[in-house]
Amino acid sequence: MSPKITTELLKQLRQVMKNPRFVQEPVQAYIVPSGDAHQSEYIAPCDCRRAFISGFDGSAGTAIVTEQHAAMWTDGRYFLQAAHQMDSNWTLMKMGLKDTPTQEDWLVSVLPEGSKVGVDPFIIPADQWKRMSKVLRSAGHDLVPVKENLIDTIWTDCPQRPCKPLITLDLSYTGVSWRDKIVALRSKMAERKVMWFVVTALDEVAWLFNLRGSDVEYNPVFFAYAIIGMNTIRLFIDGDRMMDPAVREHLQLDSTLEPEFKIQVMPYGSILSELQAVGAGLSPKEKVWLSDKASYALTEAIPKAYRYLTPYTPICIAKAVKNAVETEGMRRAHIKDAVALCELFNWLEKEVPKGTVTEIVAADKAEEFRSQQKDFVELSFATISSTGPNGAIIHYKPVPETNRTLSVNEIYLLDSGAQYKDGTTDVTRTMHFGTPSAYEKECFTYVLKGHIAVSAAIFPNGTKGHLLDSFARSALWDCGLDYLHGTGHGVGSFLNVHEGPCGISYKTFADEPLEAGMIVSDEPGYYEDGSFGIRIENVVLVIPAETKYNFKNRGSLTFEPLTLVPIQTKMIDVSLLTEKECNWVNEYHRKCREVVGAELERQGRHEALRWLLRETEPVARGQ
Amino acid sequence: MSPKITTELLKQLRQVMKNPRFVQEPVQAYIVPSGDAHQSEYIAPCDCRRAFISGFDGSAGTAIVTEQHAAMWTDGRYFLQAAHQMDSNWTLMKMGLKDTPTQEDWLVSVLPEGSKVGVDPFIIPADQWKRMSKVLRSAGHDLVPVKENLIDTIWTDCPQRPCKPLITLDLSYTGVSWRDKIVALRSKMAERKVMWFVVTALDEVAWLFNLRGSDVEYNPVFFAYAIIGMNTIRLFIDGDRMMDPAVREHLQLDSTLEPEFKIQVMPYGSILSELQAVGAGLSPKEKVWLSDKASYALTEAIPKAYRYLTPYTPICIAKAVKNAVETEGMRRAHIKDAVALCELFNWLEKEVPKGTVTEIVAADKAEEFRSQQKDFVELSFATISSTGPNGAIIHYKPVPETNRTLSVNEIYLLDSGAQYKDGTTDVTRTMHFGTPSAYEKECFTYVLKGHIAVSAAIFPNGTKGHLLDSFARSALWDCGLDYLHGTGHGVGSFLNVHEGPCGISYKTFADEPLEAGMIVSDEPGYYEDGSFGIRIENVVLVIPAETKYNFKNRGSLTFEPLTLVPIQTKMIDVSLLTEKECNWVNEYHRKCREVVGAELERQGRHEALRWLLRETEPVARGQ
Repeated sequence: MSPKITTELLKQLRQVMKNPRFVQEPVQAYIVPSGDAHQSEYIAPCDCRRAFISGFDGSAGTAIVTEQHAAMWTDGRYFLQAAHQMDSNWTLMKMGLKDTPTQEDWLVSVLPEGSKVGVDPFIIPADQWKRMSKVLRSAGHDLVPVKENLIDTIWTDCPQRPCKPLITLDLSYTGVSWRDKIVALRSKMAERKVMWFVVTALDEVAWLFNLRGSDVEYNPVFFAYAIIGMNTIRLFIDGDRMMDPAVREHLQLDSTLEPEFKIQVMPYGSILSELQAVGAGLSPKEKVWLSDKASYALTEAIPKAYRYLTPYTPICIAKAVKNAVETEGMRRAHIKDAVALCELFNWLEKEVPKGTVTEIVAADKAEEFRSQQKDFVELSFATISSTGPNGAIIHYKPVPETNRTLSVNEIYLLDSGAQYKDGTTDVTRTMHFGTPSAYEKECFTYVLKGHIAVSAAIFPNGTKGHLLDSFARSALWDCGLDYLHGTGHGVGSFLNVHEGPCGISYKTFADEPLEAGMIVSDEPGYYEDGSFGIRIENVVLVIPAETKYNFKNRGSLTFEPLTLVPIQTKMIDVSLLTEKECNWVNEYHRKCREVVGAELERQGRHEALRWLLRETEPVARGQ
Repeated sequence: MSPKITTELLKQLRQVMKNPRFVQEPVQAYIVPSGDAHQSEYIAPCDCRRAFISGFDGSAGTAIVTEQHAAMWTDGRYFLQAAHQMDSNWTLMKMGLKDTPTQEDWLVSVLPEGSKVGVDPFIIPADQWKRMSKVLRSAGHDLVPVKENLIDTIWTDCPQRPCKPLITLDLSYTGVSWRDKIVALRSKMAERKVMWFVVTALDEVAWLFNLRGSDVEYNPVFFAYAIIGMNTIRLFIDGDRMMDPAVREHLQLDSTLEPEFKIQVMPYGSILSELQAVGAGLSPKEKVWLSDKASYALTEAIPKAYRYLTPYTPICIAKAVKNAVETEGMRRAHIKDAVALCELFNWLEKEVPKGTVTEIVAADKAEEFRSQQKDFVELSFATISSTGPNGAIIHYKPVPETNRTLSVNEIYLLDSGAQYKDGTTDVTRTMHFGTPSAYEKECFTYVLKGHIAVSAAIFPNGTKGHLLDSFARSALWDCGLDYLHGTGHGVGSFLNVHEGPCGISYKTFADEPLEAGMIVSDEPGYYEDGSFGIRIENVVLVIPAETKYNFKNRGSLTFEPLTLVPIQTKMIDVSLLTEKECNWVNEYHRKCREVVGAELERQGRHEALRWLLRETEPVARGQ
């Protein structure tokens, strides 16, 4: 990775920051956030504006360019990568470190009095605008919306916004029709006395209409917005995708429908003017529901008194609780995914000693095995295939410059997943193809103990995921170890591999309580800089737990692993496990054998089946 | 407990709500919060306005009276008590239940358009004012400050504000002089570029000046404010307490001092006008530091642009980290406290079978034994002495109407503590003086496992207490049980038994990270309504932990119990303990024997010593 040379680009940007063609008044600073107009985590190439201007292409980061400075805020996952990818025009602001100023404080410290700070109002979430604007205003500056995106004005070879065909999902994949989802949404709206709901997140549009797309890599979504009224449905979407007969049939665009289920299709770019029209026509007490993370531009379209903002939308919450059909789909997807990984690990075991398997080769092989499975669509995120010291880079992705060859002397960490039409997977296994050291086994076993502590935890209905995070760390903490990331995230159903509103993290973000049907990941780790990385990740389903007592009739919950891939017993120091933990491992492996073994058999994959049987032999504490 | 009849009082209050003598314009609602002008948890009788108007005298609750309604918000600890103490004029609003409206939402739902909602600006914290005012304004109402407290206008026999003599604490108790505390405070102020600091919490004033008082029961504080400038010290305090030669000497009021350490003593009631004068005289960039929980009245005295508000003040944070002298004092206090409790439990064991010991008798006896100890000042909170079903009332305090006789058939729960000049104690033990049932033992053992899980936890430096809360619940959760309160609170050093900024709770309040020297309680419980209550509480000191590794050189912490009172082994189902837990119990009891045994011996309390020796016999899992 050599840094991107940005001297000329920054000069150009500083010119347009003063150019009356683009700005009403010159702006002394311009903010380039990570996101797109939908606050997506994964974005299309045309939205990678921050990467274009700085060279830094990690998933999280905000660039701010002033007349004198260019600064980049990112978090601990990306300190190294950002430092490598950016040239000396840029100052790296390491978020989470004590002495790193916030963006607002930094702006106040460098700007001349009475400055204007510009930002694209479609890219900045309303809650962030509010926070930032307040601090800037109190220091005598102004945050101003700049209609035309200034990066786009200098990005001469900016790629086109994708507009790929749609996939329709019938009831056998979704369990609930889009009509019934609209009915449920309207009843939530009625409960809150809200007349309109604006769908801004791409996965929420996709989920609501039982459609999928491929406008964004890894996330099966498409660029669209929707405005749902009590009697109207407006879908904002571009291209000839709506000409596809399957889509027209799915959305019943040509049928005679009750007017409240008639979908009006409108151009993607007309969302703002349509929403402004809605905003202008509101009667007193008619509220409009938006996520508080919706863009400033859309939020401002509704007069303040009429806004109803919540951190999580009713769609976000409904989408998180998978129904029986979705759960069954997720199970199927995970079995297929396990088949592919059994094939992969069996293959790696034979090939690694030859010294010809690089991280990229292994990642490609994993994709190859997955793509052989039914209803495979694409990967669900960039495969983290990392060996030795690369494993300690938590969000590593192998590129030719860093590509390392797997060997029998180093730990190999593979964090990968796929989109199948029936579900989304995300699994991490840490393997050794030679003989692991006692220290490596010790660390692996602490991580495993943490994984089991979460997976086997029983907790009351209504518990928030962040209350479980310490269970994952306790065994590491006892020895003075830890890992610097959260323990789990929500997983979509053939949707985004990261989704809200639940998760398991020490960060006390506003997570919603866990409930049966939610699906999260359980992925503690341990990383030794310059040496190795360990992570053990399963996707787990929240299920009711049977308990001896039932305090206040609240009911209890626990997790059921959906991921069924063997955990390498060679890496376990069994003497460090309790009897309960040992039983968990053996029961987990018994289930892998039973369920995945049957599927391997069915698919005639006998060599992988033999590998599975060997890898799932019970362990015993007496060893 | 028969309810207080409030019909006439409410009539009078509704009259003064419209009386131009007291309100500029009529108010359609009047809020009566719990607190005093210092946002104290424990308040003086003259500040018990909410109890006066409603009859409900629990420690937490907010009353709101409108022309038509009277409603009381309180939390789960007090649902029963509030329901008993209030008459039918009042509606109980059960906080924490899903369908309970917030105060703001309720006001919006009941008030006629364009209403005024009054509140005493000295009693409502600024952050709460802000939140409430915003919601009310957006619904077309106004929150207005009512200078004269309307309850006081109808409270004809309101007690006088206490003004008791002060206690001076020398270095052998505090470890640091008030001058050095001022120096440290000013350096924190300089760091944040703040010119003034306003001390509004009573325990912060007491701590800063190394003074104690007895204006409020259980909390050794006195009514005062202070304004600390970079070169000035103003102490606002009433009465002839400043005539006491010991106090004058302690504060060096008559010495020739550098001007920046000269204390100007001013009347308590002059804080507002003095602070307004400070506010009026500020140059640009001169900020004034206040807690965001300081009263609205004081916060408003400083123009908005000049306020520097934080959830925790530098005094709150400094006060929480006990120095070596304070820690030694706390140790001594806990040894004396243990001596008193060994005497008590030995006495109870003999007396309970006679059927003559009531909850009140036991509480009085505990106080009697404590008062025999050196430097005893008073109790640190109202003793919770509860047997059988009363034990399930979490914040029970025995009164003649509920006073139950201890017996050999019921569990007895004693949660009590004292103020000694060298430290503050708070300990809960749950005992059975006959033969506990298997179920009682089972529940006790889960609670004990939770207590040990927190006490023995090892966690990285910088960990916040709320991340430890689930450790205390895990054993209970496994069986479907739980308890509906936090696990621990900060404990003052001869100061308030509950103090910020740290604690252990599932509520993710803004707790500060735990650090060595902080002192918190560890008190999981289990409560079976109508049957029994179990709680095991130690006060524990945060200390550095020795660990095998040291991730990123962060260092680790753990807890050392300061409380050294035997945990009744008769109540333990040893078969449910792990070996590690069993060892913890035996090691704890070994330490009780060694440390408290020596003190019992020194004090010649041989019978209690024999009780201690018997109660601290090791347990074995083979039993």
